[in-house]
Amino acid sequence: MQFETNGSAPRRLHHLLTRWIIGAWIVAMMAACANQTTAPVPDASRNTPAAYATGSSASVLPSWRDGSARHAILTFIANVTREGSATFVPPEARIAVFDNDGTLWSEQPAPFQLLFMIDRLKAAAPAHPEWQRSSAFRALMAHDVSALSEHRKELLQMLSVANSSMTTDEYDQSIRSWLTSATHPTLHRPYTELVYQPQLELLDLLRANGFQVWIVSGGTAEFMRTWVTEAYGIPPDRVVGTQEKLTYEMRNGKGVLVRHPGFDFVDDGAGKPVGIFRAIGRRPILAFGNSDGDREMLEYTATGPGPSLALLVHHDDAEREFAYDRKSSLARLDKAWNEAVERGWVVVSMKRDWAAIYPMPKSALAK
Amino acid sequence: MQFETNGSAPRRLHHLLTRWIIGAWIVAMMAACANQTTAPVPDASRNTPAAYATGSSASVLPSWRDGSARHAILTFIANVTREGSATFVPPEARIAVFDNDGTLWSEQPAPFQLLFMIDRLKAAAPAHPEWQRSSAFRALMAHDVSALSEHRKELLQMLSVANSSMTTDEYDQSIRSWLTSATHPTLHRPYTELVYQPQLELLDLLRANGFQVWIVSGGTAEFMRTWVTEAYGIPPDRVVGTQEKLTYEMRNGKGVLVRHPGFDFVDDGAGKPVGIFRAIGRRPILAFGNSDGDREMLEYTATGPGPSLALLVHHDDAEREFAYDRKSSLARLDKAWNEAVERGWVVVSMKRDWAAIYPMPKSALAK
Repeated sequence: MQFETNGSAPRRLHHLLTRWIIGAWIVAMMAACANQTTAPVPDASRNTPAAYATGSSASVLPSWRDGSARHAILTFIANVTREGSATFVPPEARIAVFDNDGTLWSEQPAPFQLLFMIDRLKAAAPAHPEWQRSSAFRALMAHDVSALSEHRKELLQMLSVANSSMTTDEYDQSIRSWLTSATHPTLHRPYTELVYQPQLELLDLLRANGFQVWIVSGGTAEFMRTWVTEAYGIPPDRVVGTQEKLTYEMRNGKGVLVRHPGFDFVDDGAGKPVGIFRAIGRRPILAFGNSDGDREMLEYTATGPGPSLALLVHHDDAEREFAYDRKSSLARLDKAWNEAVERGWVVVSMKRDWAAIYPMPKSALAK
Repeated sequence: MQFETNGSAPRRLHHLLTRWIIGAWIVAMMAACANQTTAPVPDASRNTPAAYATGSSASVLPSWRDGSARHAILTFIANVTREGSATFVPPEARIAVFDNDGTLWSEQPAPFQLLFMIDRLKAAAPAHPEWQRSSAFRALMAHDVSALSEHRKELLQMLSVANSSMTTDEYDQSIRSWLTSATHPTLHRPYTELVYQPQLELLDLLRANGFQVWIVSGGTAEFMRTWVTEAYGIPPDRVVGTQEKLTYEMRNGKGVLVRHPGFDFVDDGAGKPVGIFRAIGRRPILAFGNSDGDREMLEYTATGPGPSLALLVHHDDAEREFAYDRKSSLARLDKAWNEAVERGWVVVSMKRDWAAIYPMPKSALAK
């Protein structure tokens, strides 16, 4: 019996990280800009849920404008919950899977987990005087985009070192601590407020209709687990993600898990159906993504034996969020778009279909 | 960033499989015996739940005899559910993990999944005429224990081939089909009836007290998922196990997962805390095992920050089930026993603590 690493995994990993790293210099640049100019705080009134809700059943999905996407969702939910009908799906098989970055919350100018990892790197720098001689580190600190791009591999290694060696309990604390203090470089809100209001309503509607809602993300489960229960109402054991290398050890009489550089499993692209099978054990009937990394997850869902619904968020709203698709170096939506057209998947336009993007800022709600 | 297989995983894998294979020749031998003599059908009246229940709170855990094990369980549950007390644990943190083979159902003369895999091998033989020349195959068919023991590696390879290449959907069907027809070689009951009645009562009691119950087993999740919901009331997504290699493919317009020889993750020994962290994301407060493969899981649970309970089933009942512990080549209970003594874990004696072993046979209930 062989015991080999799947040959395609390192390639997928490299691809995933390359996409993230390309995003990294964008954020470095934008953060630099943010130091000089203050981006406008979004107008809360424009984002108030329900403000734009019109058409039928306005009380459900109030931040979804009436249109083909909203209609497809409501029709699908009605079909699978109508007892006695040919399209009925029993509650235990109502599995809904959502990508996270770009589907449930924003992912520009780079996935927020990468921003966290970069902050960890900066925080770890005093303990690594040798980094001062590193071209990648100097480029990162100087926001030197072109130099950073040349020294990607070195940056990856430093990121890896800065985000390993500690126990999972310690890492968990550092994530929680970061999330309470960090804010988005241009939107100036805590990251956990940059979740999509229409999706929060959809998650609630699905649960009210007996669905089990799961996150299936290219990020790591441990990063997401610290905040998704409060943000989305999704429990920590319903988060499927990329898996860091871990070993079990006894330290000071306590059993702990220690993080090591590298990943055992990359939950992206063709890895997503594998991650779904391993964690959930059943084929989903609803899948929601936003990029080529979600293509196989949507395909696996949509080619199942019974009714299914596959959806993609199209980021076409530069004014209220960000606009990027086929040409994006980060989170490209190209092949999945082609397959959506071919197979009749639902493409959700942020601009047209969503009356609001983010929930009201907590600071505004407190007033 | 490196992408290497954890160096200790192949060793653990080999260890696990070796233990299983040693069991394999025992079962081959016993199956041969079973062809000649009919073992006595267990006396259902001796196994009737509640028949022996005595002492306090007899209505809960009726198949557990009053004693220190039952007392420890009831005290622990009372402590963690008493609101306002220092030992109170909120429901979302009431995670209970159970090993499967030897803890929730029998595992002698070999883990039942291995018996299934051997049956798959025999069924696949006509498609592999080259196996007729294999010493391992001939030894298996002839129940030749010593020859089989000499050709272990070859047997492993055949097992691997016979249990891969098909899709997970096809494999799932073959498991379900096997479970409906196969019976235990000496107990002559369907395998899914060889679950432990006292444990069924404990699972119910835990759930009634707000616990989330998970299986964490060295077997594969996909084998267990087909029957654990009906047998234990545990949903398919609460099963953590060893993970076979899988790839996602399109076949005839349908997205499928194809099984390949070998494992990506071995959920045994020090792998169990890793599997728990990845799937559940929280440290359990109750863990129940029966062998050295569960030692780290119990240790990880028992060294957590709050109240915890670690338990081991001791198979000391040759009359009603099987008797094996420190010297067993399969599912040895030795190091974990030492640690149980040292740390005060609860050792449950099947002979003393369990009034019944199995539920009433379904055939008897139907009468």
